[in-house]
Amino acid sequence: MVPLTLPSPSLNRFVFFSSLCNSSPFLRNFTSLPLIHRKLPYTPFLPLRCYAGGDKGSSSFTAKPSSEIRRARSHTKPDQKLDALRRLFSEPGVGIDAYVIPSQDAHQSEFIAECYARRTYISGFTGSAGTAVVTKDKAALWTDGRYFLQAEKQLSSSWILMRTGNLGVPTASEWITDVLAPGGRVGIDPFLFSADAAEELKEAIAKKNHELVFLYNVNLVDEIWKESRPKPPSKPIRVHGLKYAGLDVASKLSSLRGELMDAGASAIVISMLDEIAWVLNLRGSDVPHSPVMYAYLIVEVDRAKLFVDNSKVTTEVRDHLEKAGVELRPYDSVLSEIESLAQLRAQLWMDPSTLNIAIISTYKTACEKYSGKSEGKNKPKTKIADDSNGYSAKSSGIFRPSPISWAKAIKNDAELQGMKNSHLRDAAALAHFWAWLDEEVHKNDLTEVDAAEKLLEFRSKQDSFMDTSFDTISGSGANGAVIHYKPEPDSCSVVDPKKLFLLDSGAQYVDGTTDITRTVHFSEPTAREKECFTRVLKGHIALDQAVFPEGTPGFVLDAFARSSLWKIGLDYRHGTGHGVGAALNVHEGPQSISFRYGNMTPLQTGMIVSNEPGYYEDHAFGIRIENLLVVKDAETSNRFGGVAYLGFEKLTFFPIQTKMVDVSLLSETEIEWLNSYHTEVWEKVSPLLEGGSSRNWLWENTRPLAKL
Amino acid sequence: MVPLTLPSPSLNRFVFFSSLCNSSPFLRNFTSLPLIHRKLPYTPFLPLRCYAGGDKGSSSFTAKPSSEIRRARSHTKPDQKLDALRRLFSEPGVGIDAYVIPSQDAHQSEFIAECYARRTYISGFTGSAGTAVVTKDKAALWTDGRYFLQAEKQLSSSWILMRTGNLGVPTASEWITDVLAPGGRVGIDPFLFSADAAEELKEAIAKKNHELVFLYNVNLVDEIWKESRPKPPSKPIRVHGLKYAGLDVASKLSSLRGELMDAGASAIVISMLDEIAWVLNLRGSDVPHSPVMYAYLIVEVDRAKLFVDNSKVTTEVRDHLEKAGVELRPYDSVLSEIESLAQLRAQLWMDPSTLNIAIISTYKTACEKYSGKSEGKNKPKTKIADDSNGYSAKSSGIFRPSPISWAKAIKNDAELQGMKNSHLRDAAALAHFWAWLDEEVHKNDLTEVDAAEKLLEFRSKQDSFMDTSFDTISGSGANGAVIHYKPEPDSCSVVDPKKLFLLDSGAQYVDGTTDITRTVHFSEPTAREKECFTRVLKGHIALDQAVFPEGTPGFVLDAFARSSLWKIGLDYRHGTGHGVGAALNVHEGPQSISFRYGNMTPLQTGMIVSNEPGYYEDHAFGIRIENLLVVKDAETSNRFGGVAYLGFEKLTFFPIQTKMVDVSLLSETEIEWLNSYHTEVWEKVSPLLEGGSSRNWLWENTRPLAKL
Repeated sequence: MVPLTLPSPSLNRFVFFSSLCNSSPFLRNFTSLPLIHRKLPYTPFLPLRCYAGGDKGSSSFTAKPSSEIRRARSHTKPDQKLDALRRLFSEPGVGIDAYVIPSQDAHQSEFIAECYARRTYISGFTGSAGTAVVTKDKAALWTDGRYFLQAEKQLSSSWILMRTGNLGVPTASEWITDVLAPGGRVGIDPFLFSADAAEELKEAIAKKNHELVFLYNVNLVDEIWKESRPKPPSKPIRVHGLKYAGLDVASKLSSLRGELMDAGASAIVISMLDEIAWVLNLRGSDVPHSPVMYAYLIVEVDRAKLFVDNSKVTTEVRDHLEKAGVELRPYDSVLSEIESLAQLRAQLWMDPSTLNIAIISTYKTACEKYSGKSEGKNKPKTKIADDSNGYSAKSSGIFRPSPISWAKAIKNDAELQGMKNSHLRDAAALAHFWAWLDEEVHKNDLTEVDAAEKLLEFRSKQDSFMDTSFDTISGSGANGAVIHYKPEPDSCSVVDPKKLFLLDSGAQYVDGTTDITRTVHFSEPTAREKECFTRVLKGHIALDQAVFPEGTPGFVLDAFARSSLWKIGLDYRHGTGHGVGAALNVHEGPQSISFRYGNMTPLQTGMIVSNEPGYYEDHAFGIRIENLLVVKDAETSNRFGGVAYLGFEKLTFFPIQTKMVDVSLLSETEIEWLNSYHTEVWEKVSPLLEGGSSRNWLWENTRPLAKL
Repeated sequence: MVPLTLPSPSLNRFVFFSSLCNSSPFLRNFTSLPLIHRKLPYTPFLPLRCYAGGDKGSSSFTAKPSSEIRRARSHTKPDQKLDALRRLFSEPGVGIDAYVIPSQDAHQSEFIAECYARRTYISGFTGSAGTAVVTKDKAALWTDGRYFLQAEKQLSSSWILMRTGNLGVPTASEWITDVLAPGGRVGIDPFLFSADAAEELKEAIAKKNHELVFLYNVNLVDEIWKESRPKPPSKPIRVHGLKYAGLDVASKLSSLRGELMDAGASAIVISMLDEIAWVLNLRGSDVPHSPVMYAYLIVEVDRAKLFVDNSKVTTEVRDHLEKAGVELRPYDSVLSEIESLAQLRAQLWMDPSTLNIAIISTYKTACEKYSGKSEGKNKPKTKIADDSNGYSAKSSGIFRPSPISWAKAIKNDAELQGMKNSHLRDAAALAHFWAWLDEEVHKNDLTEVDAAEKLLEFRSKQDSFMDTSFDTISGSGANGAVIHYKPEPDSCSVVDPKKLFLLDSGAQYVDGTTDITRTVHFSEPTAREKECFTRVLKGHIALDQAVFPEGTPGFVLDAFARSSLWKIGLDYRHGTGHGVGAALNVHEGPQSISFRYGNMTPLQTGMIVSNEPGYYEDHAFGIRIENLLVVKDAETSNRFGGVAYLGFEKLTFFPIQTKMVDVSLLSETEIEWLNSYHTEVWEKVSPLLEGGSSRNWLWENTRPLAKL
């Protein structure tokens, strides 16, 4: 699955580099930017100076609301949800003039449980990225180029569609600033905004004296959602066996505590669900695609508390946690625990880019309260101020990235073994699928959704299969050019045997997570398609074969994957690689391989990245070739500068369609790469296939290519 | 000539990327870093946290002074210069406890006139990079790894040698902070520090309440230097003909004034000597290697003033300037002009990274003085406060990079033609030289200096030759591994016909500037030497052939040049490319191609860069292959994203020794590149050579290479 993409096809990719032009709604703080979706859910609050001609005090925006025709057709119908929401604005304890409803849950998750899909509920728009803002007389929704058509269809006439990235479209904060009378009160649910995002919104609207109001006790959308709101997920948590995790919880907590001591922190508050799952060797089923459970974790120097709904905790999990000295607390009690810790003068380590403002703000307020109160005589009762474990007379928090993100990214041997094993089973499922599809596509009208479902069927039969790791991107012809295309049963295309077909999919197994893209043609590709495919393949090989000194940030390698396309004036508008969790989230940080040069995280041995260059010709076809790779020591004969030189080892073993290759464009080394890869695919995957069509298909598709 | 290098061979090149570890004395502000020597003369004030184990309040530095043996031998001899300097510390109007003497002149020039070589005079150390600090009882000199041996030899026992980059060695500001009693007064000549550098030093020493004192009226070293001080240069300035400049002064001033208006500035103060020479189409002979003259230029919206020593101004130059409306003022009157402008409320555009603190501080002080004075009634007399031309009631300066740097970097057709012509003449001179050397090296003991001098002799015979563009780097065997090696007559090696010979040299012609490196073997290279050479060549070809979208910063291409070396664990500790002036400085900004990822300047059509990957094996050999390139439109068949795709055109045409190539490591495309380059070299350069040995040599050295 591709890394972060640009919202609008008209964007010059390099506007991202100019400090004068912060054009992406995803971009906030360039130098500390995490480069994956998960940590950067769609945030429409950034100004679009590059596009909005004159942004100096202009109060008339050129953005058009959704189709005038549909507006005319339906503008008489009032929106009951909006009406109900607005009635709450003037309730006691609320008192706001606008309410902002983001896509996120309280943990900045990429995939969220249905009960937290408030933006979808209030607006009717089901796309994964979007922010709604409702004022007393207006309602607007911001989304990006991937979703313009879908949003036009799904939004009622009560909504203004804000097409992020289009010329003259204001950011949400610009719009709020503009439409409210000065001194307006803008409400948010503080659990749904990271501290960084809330601070930014607050500053932006403060320019016209608007105030950001945190509504801790009530989510206004939940209030009107009521009975129809889905129940919070409650499926049992399971223990992620040591066989797969490789390191027990006690060891992980011990390392983490070492980090706390070094930083002078007495505790760390963790809200990222994959970090919690990783530290505790637990897996959950609360959200689609990611094997995580809703929880907070607070690790102190001498104890640890997991805030989670008790109903999900099996006896096995309870024992597992007890053994590791982890206490259980109700999910909802996290704020009161934060307050208690502040009262004890705990120095809390918190990552403001991921932790919500409800927690950070509660901590800061409590710190002020108790530091003021206790100066002089009223010392805390249970713990005495003591520098050695981070409790100090005056605590103010340590704000920096979570150390778990890094630890989790560097896989141990058991995790790597699980990844390797699950990738081979995944390849077997894929062989069954492609053997089937290669036949079926010529016989019946199969839709893109049919294909995705059949693939799921084959995967489900594999040992330890749990879930898909993201919504399958199954795109025929022009749909393949839509980078985050999600086929829907009622609107998707038939898989046209005369067109290119792009399939980006992945699975969650007990022992690992997969993510693979292949692009194939079922009959005769054009010379253009072959040239583009071959150049994408050359980029894929160049990155796969790269060797680089220890300490190299991923972005240094990004151009290797683009170079062949650049030679004929082609490029692609997404990063080349994202991190992948081991039996965890399909997108994780901190590393990435991207043209976004802000991420200085060096690639390190044991990190997993995707290698997925592509090329997309609007309204025609899309090409992407994706394998997962693990960073390893390249064991070079020299080590200039006294450092190790690193390279990659492949995790994904599945044929790349040779029919698509223009052999004349490949060097001998590249031909050797493809042939030896296919030999390896056959050797590793064929033992998992009994005789029959799948095995034959694999044999046929791993035959060597010869130089013309 | 190679771009910025790292001072110490033990440095991990990637320490540069960590925001936690600002290890280079050159690095100041990473994001706005100009990447060439010129703007970054050696500044030893940055902390070396990565190396100096515990820098928290440690007052005992582990740095050792220069050789104990020599100390014992000479420690009785007092240093008269230091004594004289120290006596001045307590003079009226001085009153300081320490004096800092940098290498620079008042214009941050890479090459300086002898009369400004104060650090050399006071310390005896002649290296190009170094900073001296003298206190009442100590004297210390900071230099980097290139110069440790030289400094040990040249410094008397009165001096402590501070080996920048070595473990435990404090920065100059750390040392000052430590050795002075709190509340010390640290003197500098404010003309010799850029505003940025002075601010940084000021802040660093303020931590222990030391004060930075600007001594405007006297340079203390000049005071003791007296009669023996060389006279300031006084050679005549010449007009750089329109034929070579391509654009007349009026047009350049007009564009510049457009920029001033856009920025709301009433004037710009320019101190970079190459910028002044470029704007005014003048060339000088004040410093070695760079055809510039000492001057300041102030361009206002309706007038312009050149501050220059009158004795250098010929009638032709006077007429030329008069025609362009440029008035002449004495060099020394710049500060009083700045003060007058401040009194008139002029908004001055100033680049704090290049402009000295004497000017900026004078302006700021005057602005405060006059803005206070005139509030209410005392309006300026000659010019009325008026927003339209940048004069305003309150002026405070506009601090940003000079727009001339950018304009100068993008060469026009006439400049490019001059560069091309001069490169061919340079190649003819080189052919004579190499034909001669190839013979002579086997007959006589030639030293590295002999070779450099002979090369100069051949170049001098070429039309329009003016000067070398930097000190020739002529290194045999192990000397080739010293990246900035400068052979000296009394200590240099013989050019050993059994070893590799690296020659990096360049010339100033009336119409252009050259810079070329070739590495050759006069007999049989080892397999190791051939492999390293071939990988450097592969990197050279990869960069030469790169195509990239408009807007790409140079650093994106840097890895292309290293990739082949990385594959076997090799690398080089310098950037891959620097900008080059057209009949101007051999190093110029703002573009560069380097592993220093801070320089976001996109490469643009018309910019010139060097392409000079290398490999250096300590105590054995050095390899570098350098051509100059000009950025041009690659005219790709596609223009994805609606942008142009750019590539390079070669300016340098001279054989690359095929004997050094391990053909088995080259792809067919690379072999074709080399063969077609050599064909082009023969076609372009042979017409400039009459029959005889040079022409034969060129023929022999441009024969095609065949795949084994």
